[in-house]
Amino acid sequence: MRIARIEHPGGTDHAVVEADGYRLIEDLFASEIRRLDRWVAADDARLLAPVEPRTVVGMAHNTGPGDRLLPPQAFLKPARSVIGPGEPVPVSADLGLVHAEAELAVVLGASGDVLGYTVANDVTGRDLQVADSLWTQAKGQRGFTPLGPWIETDLDTVSVTVGLEVDDTAAPSASTDGLARSIAEVVAWVSGFLPLGPGDVILTGAPGASLPIRPGQQVRASVAGIGELVNPVVEGMHGRRTQRGAA
Amino acid sequence: MRIARIEHPGGTDHAVVEADGYRLIEDLFASEIRRLDRWVAADDARLLAPVEPRTVVGMAHNTGPGDRLLPPQAFLKPARSVIGPGEPVPVSADLGLVHAEAELAVVLGASGDVLGYTVANDVTGRDLQVADSLWTQAKGQRGFTPLGPWIETDLDTVSVTVGLEVDDTAAPSASTDGLARSIAEVVAWVSGFLPLGPGDVILTGAPGASLPIRPGQQVRASVAGIGELVNPVVEGMHGRRTQRGAA
Repeated sequence: MRIARIEHPGGTDHAVVEADGYRLIEDLFASEIRRLDRWVAADDARLLAPVEPRTVVGMAHNTGPGDRLLPPQAFLKPARSVIGPGEPVPVSADLGLVHAEAELAVVLGASGDVLGYTVANDVTGRDLQVADSLWTQAKGQRGFTPLGPWIETDLDTVSVTVGLEVDDTAAPSASTDGLARSIAEVVAWVSGFLPLGPGDVILTGAPGASLPIRPGQQVRASVAGIGELVNPVVEGMHGRRTQRGAA
Repeated sequence: MRIARIEHPGGTDHAVVEADGYRLIEDLFASEIRRLDRWVAADDARLLAPVEPRTVVGMAHNTGPGDRLLPPQAFLKPARSVIGPGEPVPVSADLGLVHAEAELAVVLGASGDVLGYTVANDVTGRDLQVADSLWTQAKGQRGFTPLGPWIETDLDTVSVTVGLEVDDTAAPSASTDGLARSIAEVVAWVSGFLPLGPGDVILTGAPGASLPIRPGQQVRASVAGIGELVNPVVEGMHGRRTQRGAA
């Protein structure tokens, strides 16, 4: 089952993705997903980031098998850096080199269990990462965590293809079976020490190469069995304050 | 004005602190605080963490004047690590050395402006900090961010005493005028790159010494003009998952 969060004339809701529209549901975090008697046509809906997490946590090095030699390590991204499909990733020139990273992301349910999976783009400032050993500036800028297009509740995560394209440039094919630690291992380790709850998101690491992004480009991150997350890259507006209600 | 978040027989609300009770307010983030016609006696209320932030950000080194020689640096703490006055800080033996740090914390309002100030205890695992260069484990454990007892909206932050006591041991007297960067500078710098919103919290750095904490002890962090934040330290229950609705 695919569950999206949509903005539509009647408001903002979670909904099951159907062939030509969305069937609203009562509560994403209920023990059973209850479909409501309300349906929104695809043309009347805009996809949002599938959840509004309080915590977004990522794996610091979980790429090739060699990373198993290192102890697992996690970083946090600010919850308000999450954006949805189609929303712009602002990249200002003073950030230096900025990379996109395609990852499978775990969405947590009511009691810290796995609700499902979505696609994440873990946008990272490479120059900032060198200058700031804590990575807060490198990974925490506005718009640096695109998530979407929806949550897939049924997925065998052991070996799924993770893709990344920037305009016409595609990163070499990669799969979650290339991760140093599996999705299940990552979830177990992170849940072991970090307080997590409904709607929180775990970025499980990029099995493939990252690619540089610049304003004017379009970045596509994908996970086979889930879908494709597409975001334009725009001239940055860093330094401005977030308005009330902004993600 | 002091604004608390309280649990009372009628629910959970923000309220203005009065001599012998709490006057409920309509909306903490409204442009003007509107007092409601509902009052709760002090005996019927329990203080909670004054806000439920989506982002908690701290300053990495903002103690003595020497830190001005370093570029400013920030870290994130998970939103769900926030606990309120009187709630236990779990410290398990396998975390090694754990320190309390008393800090003035900034609470943000509707449009990223400063709503007021509260007291924070930035609990930090020192051994974990050595092992994990990203500090996620060191600062991100359950219960590692006590906040409270309330928000003080009127405070001149330039030179206020910040105190820390663990049982009968008090850290030497310290003041915000000893911070490398002032509260105003910290707010301006962090807001410049991090997406922040209503209820988010900035820990501004500990001007005084930190103190080790162990299960069975009581830790008191205070800021003159705001109040005192007291938490018991208990045997850790790390490794358990957070239940739905837990902070």
